Amino acid sequence: MDHQDPQTPAAAAARGAVSHGELANAIRFLAMDAVERAKSGHPGMPMGMADVATVLFRDFLSFDPSAPDWADRDRFVLSAGHGSMLLYALLYLTGYAEMTVEELKRFRQLGSKTPGHPEADHALGIETTTGPLGQGFGNAVGMAIAERLLAARFGESVVDHRTYVMVGDGCLMEGISHEAASLAGHLKLGKLIALYDDNEISIDGPTSLALSDDALLRFEAYGWHTQRVDGHDPEAIRAAIEAARADERPSLIACRTRIGFGAPTKEGTAATHGAPLGAEEIAGARKKLGWPYAPFEVPAPVLGAWRAIGAAGAARRQAWLERLEGLSAADRDEFRRRLSGELPADLAAAFKTLKAEIDAEKPTLATRQSSQRTIEAVAGLMPELIGGSADLTGSNNTKAKAQANIVPPGYTGSYLHYGVREHAMAAAMNGLALHGGFRPYGGTFLVFSDYCRPSIRLSALMRQPVVYVMTHDSIGLGEDGPTHQPVEHLAALRAIPNLWVMRPADTMETAECWELALERKDGPSVLALTRQSVPTVRGGAGEENWCRYGAYILTPAHAARQVTLIASGSEVSIALEAQKLLREQDIAASVISMPCWELFAEQPSSYRDEVLYPGSLQVAIEAGVPFGWERWVGAEGVVVGMKGFGASAPHTALYEHFGITAEAVVSAVRTHL
Amino acid sequence: MDHQDPQTPAAAAARGAVSHGELANAIRFLAMDAVERAKSGHPGMPMGMADVATVLFRDFLSFDPSAPDWADRDRFVLSAGHGSMLLYALLYLTGYAEMTVEELKRFRQLGSKTPGHPEADHALGIETTTGPLGQGFGNAVGMAIAERLLAARFGESVVDHRTYVMVGDGCLMEGISHEAASLAGHLKLGKLIALYDDNEISIDGPTSLALSDDALLRFEAYGWHTQRVDGHDPEAIRAAIEAARADERPSLIACRTRIGFGAPTKEGTAATHGAPLGAEEIAGARKKLGWPYAPFEVPAPVLGAWRAIGAAGAARRQAWLERLEGLSAADRDEFRRRLSGELPADLAAAFKTLKAEIDAEKPTLATRQSSQRTIEAVAGLMPELIGGSADLTGSNNTKAKAQANIVPPGYTGSYLHYGVREHAMAAAMNGLALHGGFRPYGGTFLVFSDYCRPSIRLSALMRQPVVYVMTHDSIGLGEDGPTHQPVEHLAALRAIPNLWVMRPADTMETAECWELALERKDGPSVLALTRQSVPTVRGGAGEENWCRYGAYILTPAHAARQVTLIASGSEVSIALEAQKLLREQDIAASVISMPCWELFAEQPSSYRDEVLYPGSLQVAIEAGVPFGWERWVGAEGVVVGMKGFGASAPHTALYEHFGITAEAVVSAVRTHL
Repeated sequence: MDHQDPQTPAAAAARGAVSHGELANAIRFLAMDAVERAKSGHPGMPMGMADVATVLFRDFLSFDPSAPDWADRDRFVLSAGHGSMLLYALLYLTGYAEMTVEELKRFRQLGSKTPGHPEADHALGIETTTGPLGQGFGNAVGMAIAERLLAARFGESVVDHRTYVMVGDGCLMEGISHEAASLAGHLKLGKLIALYDDNEISIDGPTSLALSDDALLRFEAYGWHTQRVDGHDPEAIRAAIEAARADERPSLIACRTRIGFGAPTKEGTAATHGAPLGAEEIAGARKKLGWPYAPFEVPAPVLGAWRAIGAAGAARRQAWLERLEGLSAADRDEFRRRLSGELPADLAAAFKTLKAEIDAEKPTLATRQSSQRTIEAVAGLMPELIGGSADLTGSNNTKAKAQANIVPPGYTGSYLHYGVREHAMAAAMNGLALHGGFRPYGGTFLVFSDYCRPSIRLSALMRQPVVYVMTHDSIGLGEDGPTHQPVEHLAALRAIPNLWVMRPADTMETAECWELALERKDGPSVLALTRQSVPTVRGGAGEENWCRYGAYILTPAHAARQVTLIASGSEVSIALEAQKLLREQDIAASVISMPCWELFAEQPSSYRDEVLYPGSLQVAIEAGVPFGWERWVGAEGVVVGMKGFGASAPHTALYEHFGITAEAVVSAVRTHL
Repeated sequence: MDHQDPQTPAAAAARGAVSHGELANAIRFLAMDAVERAKSGHPGMPMGMADVATVLFRDFLSFDPSAPDWADRDRFVLSAGHGSMLLYALLYLTGYAEMTVEELKRFRQLGSKTPGHPEADHALGIETTTGPLGQGFGNAVGMAIAERLLAARFGESVVDHRTYVMVGDGCLMEGISHEAASLAGHLKLGKLIALYDDNEISIDGPTSLALSDDALLRFEAYGWHTQRVDGHDPEAIRAAIEAARADERPSLIACRTRIGFGAPTKEGTAATHGAPLGAEEIAGARKKLGWPYAPFEVPAPVLGAWRAIGAAGAARRQAWLERLEGLSAADRDEFRRRLSGELPADLAAAFKTLKAEIDAEKPTLATRQSSQRTIEAVAGLMPELIGGSADLTGSNNTKAKAQANIVPPGYTGSYLHYGVREHAMAAAMNGLALHGGFRPYGGTFLVFSDYCRPSIRLSALMRQPVVYVMTHDSIGLGEDGPTHQPVEHLAALRAIPNLWVMRPADTMETAECWELALERKDGPSVLALTRQSVPTVRGGAGEENWCRYGAYILTPAHAARQVTLIASGSEVSIALEAQKLLREQDIAASVISMPCWELFAEQPSSYRDEVLYPGSLQVAIEAGVPFGWERWVGAEGVVVGMKGFGASAPHTALYEHFGITAEAVVSAVRTHL
């Protein structure tokens, strides 16, 4: 059964009334005009790929501008995000209500719906934020995984769509393209189709300056189906897409195009890539392509034809709605819950039970193991939870017993061995989250957050609730040495807006941080977890999730507070030990556990003052660089942390060597008090 | 002429006296014993690759343990750095004086020469720091580029060596391997030979869990010569390396090995990868491989044979020294200067002249353009300066008129179009610097520092003076929007130990920061540069490089100082404007230009206090997140900066929208004074 028969009557009528060239030229001139008006932008790519986009949208893409978030729509990702006007033009032409011609005229202006690079907005028909090259391609792989997983659960009668992604030379030169393509080939994502804008031009000039790859051979090596086509021959493009759809492998179609197609003097040159063409060149293009219309004018028949193409999706969606009714009521409800992102009703109770158990047991565990314990407790309740690791499953403790591997052709599991591909993992997790129906988490060592940082940033910018499980979070990893010991990574991640960086101190806090990460709907979380064992520091579970406040008084001072010891993660137990030693010297110190700066910063200042107690000597203890801690300890405060890179030795020796011990804390207190 | 004839008499004698198997087993047992003693480490890889390493070191590698930093040695890079015991064993066996058996016994202990992962130490024979996967491969590409460039300058009579790099499945799964291999293929680096430990095992288990690539086909697509060989058949390995040496393309030899070769029950499994084998398993291996010696014992004939292999290099080096004498005296001096890293004698004068010109002219320029002006002024004097950009040459302003492109087969240029490959660019720059003879710099947008962050970290950890030219350093880039606007990147880079992050305010400061970056010998620098024009703020060049102090009083207050305005880069001119407005309101403010936190932190506290004037209201102005600025402005201070991600609009509109203006500074001052 193929629910995507391209031969709909409306599309056929549209094809009859208006020529392919007119449809494509409407895109081209909107792109030229908008860039010209903004005096900024990238006309070359939309002009070059207009023919490919026209064929795709007219003959293949299943979408409904009246319901942009229709769950079973085909996903269209513009990975070469600088060509944003291609997408905006298509959204306008096919009738997305919010994408008016006025918005096209406000291209790249403050507050417009047409920023320089596409920004994820499902209401608007924009599937993901692109621009940083290769990211959209990685997202598309995640979306294609999501489609297969959702189809495996709910059946192809309601989940049967394709993911189309447009990539340029830049996307394919980036390392992430290797990781993502290799993963897609391994997972046999046959419904993923990449349209490669093979225009042989990059910013510096002809790609031959820097590139000699045989792209098709390369993708064959990944197990992809590959084709080469003239990107300005609509029939050839159509045939290629049809062949790609028919093949069981993911498909790459290298479309040989001319960048800036139609520009009389600049076509085929880097000059069309990233700058307005200029009035004269555009006038020349109008002549050359036979488009005698004013800027932003699309003649009624052409606009009508495009709108008919857009309108054709409504019937498809109607048919899908009827098929959805064919599901059992329970499945229908579950499908809706999954797509809405609502958590299972019994999750809160599961956390309550888990916390009571932890409180009774008070285990001494590495927080990575505590994390696994939490995953074990919730994975069964949350079929939307998709776990994985970049080849560190046993070290990250990311896999629950109940989680089976996701493998083709069944795709019934819920755990992905991403391979040593941190970057593609993160980008695919963004794609899984953006697709809807899934809550992805993935593991690597904290130090390798650097390998996927561009995608973490996009999780934050796109407000996607992806969970990064990052273990071995300090010199506490020991012998692997400075290459594997994060010292600056907590700071570097905390610097990213809208990212929660959570570093729980024990099993209880780990459960609470997981709960917060799962409850979160508007952004990603990092769980920074220890390799080494840490004792339980939190007694008395109760109902309250104390980590929700970002920081809290873990153990108050035995008398009027003189000193405030603030620590995160594995250093909280050091703070407690220091507190005891200080008490022996009649110094009254409180211990603050601070698992999450971002949440603490959101608390009212009265609460923050109660916790930090300004006027007391504030001492932060964290096995990382002090960078940023001045925010909490103030000008008079002290940070007991790392001064530079770590070293290779057993972790106890390292804590001693670098002076991150209770004794060092006591000594710092005595010096500064 | 081949200066690397493998048939040296000493090597032949060594081959005659002791079998290949005994040589290889010496490596295997040292690895097993050291990991066992450390109770930590990775025995599987050294055991699996011992045969390949033995053939390489015995029959091919040109090296001299008595002169580890011999300029024309072959480079051997262990990209799969977790197999560090393979390298340490080889260094000990072949006679590197500092690598004693005691050091092997101190594997992974504090202060040993045998940390968990190899750490660059030319005196010790360790070419680069590896462990983060794929980095060594990228370094090797840089080293191979360096060899060709140096040969182009000084001739093959003195520069004629190969670069061998051992990579594992992890290295080849990482995105960086794609970028680096593609670049190497494009540049036709025929003297680069990659030995791929194709053991079909990764940490999570068989690679088939996550990987279906045809690696050979993939590398063919990059223009590489490829072979597959039994990694335990010395004659086949030898023949493959010979074929690789003979081919004009870079070569990949996929060596099918069994991880943990010789372990009786664990061979071929992930269990040997990252944990000690255990006493029983090692005892079994001793039996199975016929190695009845005590832990760390290498029988005299075997050690003798290995030492003979090591000693064979001395004659080669002697011959090379004689050839070096064949150069003209001037060339010989220049060769030595280049390899020592000493700057050209006339560089300081060139900077003096440049600064005088700038001072006379007081230009209004984007600092990226000022950077180009500096490059223009020094490139001709510094043949060791190798420029480049990740396909943003015109935007990063990285190319001087005099710089020709580096292209095969001549390699006479000094500018590399790295392609859209930020990560490989950074790793290759590390390789160029490590090789010796070069001072690399490379450009991209500041926001894409995220794409090469793992390599920047390694520049810092390895103390390599690589210069990162990172333009478009704030919302000042305007219309490209939040995907391209760095807001957290200055903070995230400042968090990396031993990295100078420099953000000059105008043309003068840009020249000064460049001077500092070039003078630096013990670590990398980032130059964060504007896209938008900025006025000259620094009059009076004089002799002094004021940026050397990290921060300085640019314009003192008109009366007793009440307010200290601290700014970097493009915001310095905003601070000056605010100073004027404040003066109109009778508020006395000084303006501090702070181009480099790290240098300022090194100044004596008396100087820092003079500059920051504690007790005054301290206001920082920087178009990034405030993260970390509390260090300088103190608890009562104010930061005028970004609260989150940027937006797409013309840059003047963005500065207004986000409140980074002189008026906003004045308003903040009035609120807090």
